[in-house]
Amino acid sequence: MFITLEGPEGSGKTSHIPYLVEYLREKGHTVFPTREPGGTTISEQIRDILHDLKNAEMHPRTETLLYQAARAQIVEQVIKPRLAVGEIVISDRYYDSTIAYQGYGHQQDLEQVRGLVKYATGGLTPDLTILLDLDIEVGLKRKIQNEMEWNRMDAYTVEFHQRVRRGYLELVKQEPQRWVVVNSDQKWDDVQAELKEVIIKGLNKK
Amino acid sequence: MFITLEGPEGSGKTSHIPYLVEYLREKGHTVFPTREPGGTTISEQIRDILHDLKNAEMHPRTETLLYQAARAQIVEQVIKPRLAVGEIVISDRYYDSTIAYQGYGHQQDLEQVRGLVKYATGGLTPDLTILLDLDIEVGLKRKIQNEMEWNRMDAYTVEFHQRVRRGYLELVKQEPQRWVVVNSDQKWDDVQAELKEVIIKGLNKK
Repeated sequence: MFITLEGPEGSGKTSHIPYLVEYLREKGHTVFPTREPGGTTISEQIRDILHDLKNAEMHPRTETLLYQAARAQIVEQVIKPRLAVGEIVISDRYYDSTIAYQGYGHQQDLEQVRGLVKYATGGLTPDLTILLDLDIEVGLKRKIQNEMEWNRMDAYTVEFHQRVRRGYLELVKQEPQRWVVVNSDQKWDDVQAELKEVIIKGLNKK
Repeated sequence: MFITLEGPEGSGKTSHIPYLVEYLREKGHTVFPTREPGGTTISEQIRDILHDLKNAEMHPRTETLLYQAARAQIVEQVIKPRLAVGEIVISDRYYDSTIAYQGYGHQQDLEQVRGLVKYATGGLTPDLTILLDLDIEVGLKRKIQNEMEWNRMDAYTVEFHQRVRRGYLELVKQEPQRWVVVNSDQKWDDVQAELKEVIIKGLNKK
C-alpha cells in the first residue's frame, strides 16, 4: 500500500508522519516513511539545490525537472522495491505536489507537467492520498511561529501558494476515489486522530 | 546564430571550441561559448551530481531529467538572451546529446525523450550542429592517454558508447540540413581547419 500526504506549507505533514508510522508498526505493519524531494543519496543532493535560497534565479522549468529527477530516483531505488515486498510506504509529498506547485502554482501547461510526472514515476500512482488542507496564511504563519526551516519554495508569493491550494482542491475533485481531505486547522491531536482513521479505512479497503 | 558541437567522449569538442571562439572574435563577431551540462551556477551544481562517480546508482530516468533541468536553466538564463542581442552562441553539447546518450545509449523511448527535450529547451533548436565523429575505442583511449577527467558517463560500457555513436549518425540522417559531420580521427590542426570552414559556411548561409 502506497500512501501519500499532500498539503501547503505549514499544514503539518512532516510532524504527523512519524506518529502514523509508529501507530501502524504497533499494529504489526512494516512501514517505510519517505519524503520528497529526497529519500536517497542522489535525491537529497537534488533537494539541496531546490531548497537553497541562493538559487533564487531558478527557472520554473528547471525546478519542475529537478523535482522529477529526485522522484525518478526514489521511485526506482526505494518505493517500488518496498511495495514489491508488501511494505506500506508513506511519502511526505509525491507527484501531486508537482501538479499543484509547478503546474497550478507556476501556471505551467498542466498536460505537459502531467507528461513529465508520468515519465518520472514510470506510472506509479498512490493507493491513498491525504490532503492536509489549510488556509495559506495560517500555514505560513505557523512556519514562522514555529521557526521551521524556510526554503526557496516558501519564499514564493502568497498568490502562488493560494494557486497551489486551489490546485490541490481541483485534484481532489478530479479523483475523489483516491483523495481524502483532512482539515489541518484543528488541534494537532484531532488531526492525528482523523489521519489514523483515514489510513485504517484505506488499509481495510485495500 | 546558435552553433552546437556534438560527439562521443574524446572527440575533441572541448579542446577545439576556445580556438573557434578566438577565430570568430578576430573576425569581429561577438561570441559566447557555453557547455552542457553547466554554464550557470545552478546548472554547474547539477553537473556535479551527474558527473560524480559516487552516484553510480543513478537511474537512467533520473539522469535524463537532471540533464534537462541543467539545460532549461542555461537556455533561459544564458542562451536565449545572448541570441536575442545577436551574439553567436557556441555550445559544447546540447539536446542532441540527450537523444544520443539517454535515448539511444540507454535505449529509452525516443519519443518520450524528445518530449522532455522539447519541454527543457522551450523548442530552441540550433542553427548548425557539428558532429565530431570518432571511433569509440579511439576516443576512450584518447581520454585515458591525455589523462582527461574521467566521469560517471565515461564509465558506461563500450557497447553503450557505440549505441551513442550510432545514435548520432542516425540523427544526422534525419536532419541533414542542420548537421555537418567532421571526422575527428585526423591531425588536430586539420580538424580545426575543417571546423572553421564549416562554421564560416554556416554564417554565410544564415
